[in-house]
Amino acid sequence: MAKILRVDMASGDCRFTEVPSLYLGLGGRGLTSAIVANEVDPLANPLGPRNKLVFAPGLLGGTSCANSGRISAGAKSPLTLGIKESNSGGQPGGHLASLGILAVVIENAATPDGWWQLEISPDFARLTPCSAGGLNNYVAVEKLSAEQSPGCSYITIGRAGEFRLAASSIAMTDLEGLPSRQAARGGLGAVMGSKRLKAVIIHPGKEILPLVDPDSFHKASKRFAKALTEHPVCGRSLSEYGSAAMMGLFNEAGAVPTRNFSNNRFDHADALSGERLNELTRQRGGQGRVARACMSGCVMRCSGVFPDSLGRRIGKWPDYETMWAFGPNAEIKDLDDVARYDRLCDDTGVDTIDVGGALAVLMEAGALKFGDAKGALAAAAEISEGTALGRILGSGAAVAGKVYGAIRVAEVKGQALPAFDPRSVKGQGVTFATNPQGADHTAGFSYAANLLAMGGEVDPLSAEGQAELSRRTQISAAAVDSLGLCLFVSFAFFETPEAVDAVVDMLNARYGWSLTRRDLDLLGRRVLEIEVDFNRRAGLSSSSDRLPEFFAYEETIVHKSTFDVTQSDLDKVLSFKEELK
Amino acid sequence: MAKILRVDMASGDCRFTEVPSLYLGLGGRGLTSAIVANEVDPLANPLGPRNKLVFAPGLLGGTSCANSGRISAGAKSPLTLGIKESNSGGQPGGHLASLGILAVVIENAATPDGWWQLEISPDFARLTPCSAGGLNNYVAVEKLSAEQSPGCSYITIGRAGEFRLAASSIAMTDLEGLPSRQAARGGLGAVMGSKRLKAVIIHPGKEILPLVDPDSFHKASKRFAKALTEHPVCGRSLSEYGSAAMMGLFNEAGAVPTRNFSNNRFDHADALSGERLNELTRQRGGQGRVARACMSGCVMRCSGVFPDSLGRRIGKWPDYETMWAFGPNAEIKDLDDVARYDRLCDDTGVDTIDVGGALAVLMEAGALKFGDAKGALAAAAEISEGTALGRILGSGAAVAGKVYGAIRVAEVKGQALPAFDPRSVKGQGVTFATNPQGADHTAGFSYAANLLAMGGEVDPLSAEGQAELSRRTQISAAAVDSLGLCLFVSFAFFETPEAVDAVVDMLNARYGWSLTRRDLDLLGRRVLEIEVDFNRRAGLSSSSDRLPEFFAYEETIVHKSTFDVTQSDLDKVLSFKEELK
Repeated sequence: MAKILRVDMASGDCRFTEVPSLYLGLGGRGLTSAIVANEVDPLANPLGPRNKLVFAPGLLGGTSCANSGRISAGAKSPLTLGIKESNSGGQPGGHLASLGILAVVIENAATPDGWWQLEISPDFARLTPCSAGGLNNYVAVEKLSAEQSPGCSYITIGRAGEFRLAASSIAMTDLEGLPSRQAARGGLGAVMGSKRLKAVIIHPGKEILPLVDPDSFHKASKRFAKALTEHPVCGRSLSEYGSAAMMGLFNEAGAVPTRNFSNNRFDHADALSGERLNELTRQRGGQGRVARACMSGCVMRCSGVFPDSLGRRIGKWPDYETMWAFGPNAEIKDLDDVARYDRLCDDTGVDTIDVGGALAVLMEAGALKFGDAKGALAAAAEISEGTALGRILGSGAAVAGKVYGAIRVAEVKGQALPAFDPRSVKGQGVTFATNPQGADHTAGFSYAANLLAMGGEVDPLSAEGQAELSRRTQISAAAVDSLGLCLFVSFAFFETPEAVDAVVDMLNARYGWSLTRRDLDLLGRRVLEIEVDFNRRAGLSSSSDRLPEFFAYEETIVHKSTFDVTQSDLDKVLSFKEELK
Repeated sequence: MAKILRVDMASGDCRFTEVPSLYLGLGGRGLTSAIVANEVDPLANPLGPRNKLVFAPGLLGGTSCANSGRISAGAKSPLTLGIKESNSGGQPGGHLASLGILAVVIENAATPDGWWQLEISPDFARLTPCSAGGLNNYVAVEKLSAEQSPGCSYITIGRAGEFRLAASSIAMTDLEGLPSRQAARGGLGAVMGSKRLKAVIIHPGKEILPLVDPDSFHKASKRFAKALTEHPVCGRSLSEYGSAAMMGLFNEAGAVPTRNFSNNRFDHADALSGERLNELTRQRGGQGRVARACMSGCVMRCSGVFPDSLGRRIGKWPDYETMWAFGPNAEIKDLDDVARYDRLCDDTGVDTIDVGGALAVLMEAGALKFGDAKGALAAAAEISEGTALGRILGSGAAVAGKVYGAIRVAEVKGQALPAFDPRSVKGQGVTFATNPQGADHTAGFSYAANLLAMGGEVDPLSAEGQAELSRRTQISAAAVDSLGLCLFVSFAFFETPEAVDAVVDMLNARYGWSLTRRDLDLLGRRVLEIEVDFNRRAGLSSSSDRLPEFFAYEETIVHKSTFDVTQSDLDKVLSFKEELK
């Protein structure tokens, strides 16, 4: 019987409750957003006791469906002051689902004199004092793992989350039991910290979940896995080059923000690329295979272990966004430095994008130097120390911009822009502006149609058609995020209707539903509507659905392009009653 | 012929232009707000070239009317992201008016490779390179004064404004030629800094402005001065004890926020009071008279010079808000320390309230210690150095709260609350919540009716009647701010209809108008409507017209009171079509 676990940090109560009808049929992002929208006062202080932190696996979580183990974390965001869902790979999503838990809802806050851990097993759920307070993620998980039986997965915060910094992340352990996967965006680590919850420890369930029609499910599951493995991106380039596979292509397209968004092509993109990542990893003969999965059931395997010149693990393969944030946007060109930055952020528990944006802002303000990796790493290391500088960086790009009186600050709703220049990939710019989560690359892959001719073909430099494209990809992403699927399945979705059909068939076979492909679309819309409505009640008006002003009057160097999608078009993107073309 | 001076920082052009009909009949805050609302894109970056900075004397500026020399500064605020007007005493207001200048509008921005000064005289207006870049206000004004003929007044920014910090102020020189008066709130110094304008130098005009009916004017002017001097507050307590005259009374009433708003009565209020200020000044035999005026034509004389134990000037008499911000709210109890803080803020060019709020937040976060004046002064001194800590403090309480992950942060629209606990002076709380400028004590003196039985009598602890009271006082303040009058005339206005009539008579005699008392009311409403409309277009919805959540659930210690005025009442305050009682 599926259930919701409610944890009252003030009283210590952990209660398994039935799922209210309001939440039936929802999972992942759809469920976290519905719970936050329904149960959290939109004007609540995100760090106050009235906010709630929700974890939820997706609708296909805990099944044999490929890449279905993502976990969504949701709350009112201390970064955007709007609704937030941030999802992650790693093992906790699958483990929660295997326990028949639809969602864990963390309520109220414990007194600020200690740290707590939530243990969840097939037999109990309980809050106990946590011995890992004050530690960063890697050491914390090592310590907690030594105290527990093997096979558990861990959800933790580092020092940044303890400090309640607005760019702090929540770490999830991967297949190796390392806290390398992050629900990184929107400062949800700060919400967890505000509740004095240091860790969630999940003992996986022993049984495979019941399926209404196991045969149909397994057939559809195979079709889906086949569609993924046969797709050129999902089945090959991601596992060879990681998510940075397309750095070179994006850079050629003038899409890669450089030197704090003052340029849009990086002269050293060769040194920072998926190809280079693969090459160096092989040359240096580090631990393990070149590419690996971050969670059980993944067939795309975009991750890897990046070794230093002596073959010792630095950290995971940096993702495209991280490689960009500490690379072109900071004019740093050494992949080892990027990998060290990635590891540092994973350990401290901060978002590589928002901290990278903050570093770039400080570089432009003269407080750090463009290209100075050593200086930037030392500054980022201060986040763990709680120094004034560290706290500024850990608060993200928008706050750093304010503190340093900066004008060129690339953020929407307080959240730093990721690795696409909105002036040269305008569909992505529309998504950054309008998505209820703030500027987010995972809110919809418009760049696929803008730059890769996948899922349509829309001229990246024209204002035409971007609103419609953005709406379409945002809906798709909201649906994918609700299923517990890795967003990289989108490439297959865009090009292989069979992949979508297989997913619909799995949902029907699992739950006994009779959905059609169109229902997935309606699910995505419903989620976005819930989120936009919460934001409006939280005071984020349509004026917050705008890019920073400088994108409208500073031309890009490569194309002399500005962001010129009209405000009226932006306002229509998620107003589903409005027609778009 | 009245005119508007438009200064293009990009081209260097200074043009005197006619007053468009849209702006006729407006002055001071009414005029700055109308120009900002009409000419600045509400979504413009406040620190970008598309913002405008406006200076305007009031409608009675440059006349013999008592206390009519205030100057309004206006822009889109980098602190609140809404419209801002901040006014100040000192000489520049009267000087501008004596040149027949209704407003100075600073447009665009100079390149960031130098600092500029704007000189305005009866014969010319010009931009020239400024030699005072990099200096704080006191030294800057000393240097500039040595370069100019005597008798000029100066509008300058300190290092905080140069750094474009969100709590930076604009300094105005007083009767002694010292930059002790500040348009402090809302970060307008940062806007001036963003335009690379270090100083405005005003050579006063030689002629008294023409009056349509000089006889009537002078008669009314005398009646007004008499009403002020005969009023117990305006005519006596302000000049004896400064604006801190009522610290003891407010503290008795449990109205004084203490220890970062966690208490509402300070045990050492005797040590920090107007009485003590007067006593110490006399005992120490410092420079000049005990009380003095900050500008020509002032009959209330609430200022003074505060000497140290050796009789040497520390700075001006700290105002009530400053005494509170560095006193009870930081648990500091030495008046000398408060005076040093005041002088430091005046010199650096920052708002004592917002920096004080930031200090209190850091004290609660453990980064500084409550009661540690030395530590707090050293931290505030870092603002001039541009250190990370200094920049955080210079960005004000809301940003400091975010950076330190604080929950108890007393601010509205990003601007720190001043010295009244909204739970024990609820009329003031309503004004803090709803005023378009953010939390501001100068937006309306509801505390007069709540605590002094002046201008009505409304139980400070009841939610009843506060919305109506706040509307009334906000309208009155908006009118007073548009006339160029010091807001302390409000006490006389509240109690002496004759004072209001005298002002109406002066306006009519000066301009040949035929206003009635009701027209002053309509003027105040019009100004508020302009400001609210700008804010709505800037994206500040009614959700921004709320106090921080903790005031609703943390009871005050003295009265066990929470802020319980309903959201519906708050929404009605400035919706003038709605009836209030």
